[in-house]
Amino acid sequence: MRNLFLTLEYDGTNYHGFQIQPNAITIQGVLENAIKEIFKEDITVTGCSRTDAGVHAKKYVCSFFTECKIPCEKVPIALNTKLPYDIRAILCKEVDENFHARFDTVSKTYNYVINNREFDVFKRNYSWYVDAKLDVEKMNNAAKYFIGKHDFKSFMTGEKDNTEREVFSLDVEEKDGFINIFITADGYLYNMVRIITGTLKMVGEGKLNSEDIKHIIDAKDRTKAGVTAPPQGLYLYDVKY
Amino acid sequence: MRNLFLTLEYDGTNYHGFQIQPNAITIQGVLENAIKEIFKEDITVTGCSRTDAGVHAKKYVCSFFTECKIPCEKVPIALNTKLPYDIRAILCKEVDENFHARFDTVSKTYNYVINNREFDVFKRNYSWYVDAKLDVEKMNNAAKYFIGKHDFKSFMTGEKDNTEREVFSLDVEEKDGFINIFITADGYLYNMVRIITGTLKMVGEGKLNSEDIKHIIDAKDRTKAGVTAPPQGLYLYDVKY
Repeated sequence: MRNLFLTLEYDGTNYHGFQIQPNAITIQGVLENAIKEIFKEDITVTGCSRTDAGVHAKKYVCSFFTECKIPCEKVPIALNTKLPYDIRAILCKEVDENFHARFDTVSKTYNYVINNREFDVFKRNYSWYVDAKLDVEKMNNAAKYFIGKHDFKSFMTGEKDNTEREVFSLDVEEKDGFINIFITADGYLYNMVRIITGTLKMVGEGKLNSEDIKHIIDAKDRTKAGVTAPPQGLYLYDVKY
Repeated sequence: MRNLFLTLEYDGTNYHGFQIQPNAITIQGVLENAIKEIFKEDITVTGCSRTDAGVHAKKYVCSFFTECKIPCEKVPIALNTKLPYDIRAILCKEVDENFHARFDTVSKTYNYVINNREFDVFKRNYSWYVDAKLDVEKMNNAAKYFIGKHDFKSFMTGEKDNTEREVFSLDVEEKDGFINIFITADGYLYNMVRIITGTLKMVGEGKLNSEDIKHIIDAKDRTKAGVTAPPQGLYLYDVKY
């Protein structure tokens, strides 16, 4: 039995996220159908994370067990003959049978794209258009407060027992009117990146001060943080094991 | 009766072109419905050109007559509250009652985008992915043969009485692996830009020589020219009156 590690790139616009669910088209559902056609086996794929409807991936990692002998370098080419053009298989390699795409992650990096220039029909599914001019320096000052191990209860939707996560880096960069947020952490709570982004946006607008972030974290109260940024600006960017 | 000049930007991915037609969603159909909601009149819009299904516009010009007194600067704002996010009204001004959006054009510029880097899920609806490395210098040499007044019968689909057009400029530029073709002409035959692009691509691949363009034009025979490039790389870029 081989354990295959597979990376994907996908445009999440037309999908209800990664994870398979009834009555909805998902990346996992479409991928498993393509695998079934190529491998002639019923295979369940393990993904590195759920991603929400409309969220994209520049690098998504998943893995699956197979009896099939098809060489690794041929797997992406074969799968891409069956996958729609908004999902591409990029790289496949064989890994240890104990490898787990979700539990073995050391860090994941997300990229959030804010269009702070002018509304652009061609970017509407790929960024969050924010009309008010944002102060990137203030956003970067605020970003520093997120770095380190914290209880991120203020920055999540829903309930969870362990809400402590470690943010390794958080950078805000502006180029040609597009603001890119890059965040790397050991793990994420539900909607964490989108709520951090919505909070940083309010700092950029001057509705919050950079130093307010410390108090929002300490409050452990979702209502103290900013809005939840919409899904279409969010990209899973990198996954490390 | 006021004659209003209106510019639009649109992502053509989800539309069957500009021109209204039964049993299909078109830009004109959606625009006329939005105008009807705002202006409370049944209005027929005159567009500067048909554009095919999947073709985009960075600047599309249309015009329509109205009794409504709404100030020009308010028109785009009002229309944008009714239009879907893949169509945006940009600018409105009042013009002479004799102005005609199609017949009065002096020149139109199209931009064609070729992705010559690697397939990218986020660019799939906005460029033509060409795997073979294209020689941009050869394409530019070939482009020169199109400039001037010619019979472009070899570069059209269908039949038309007058197939003479004047190409004012044709440039091929490469940036970061994307090849941009810009063509400005007094008018276009059906599929003309897409067939010129497909022919230039064959020059870039080395399947045709630059000098072959002269013979292909002289042949007045569609079968001598290259393939028709797909619609998703094509943008109406500018219109001059």
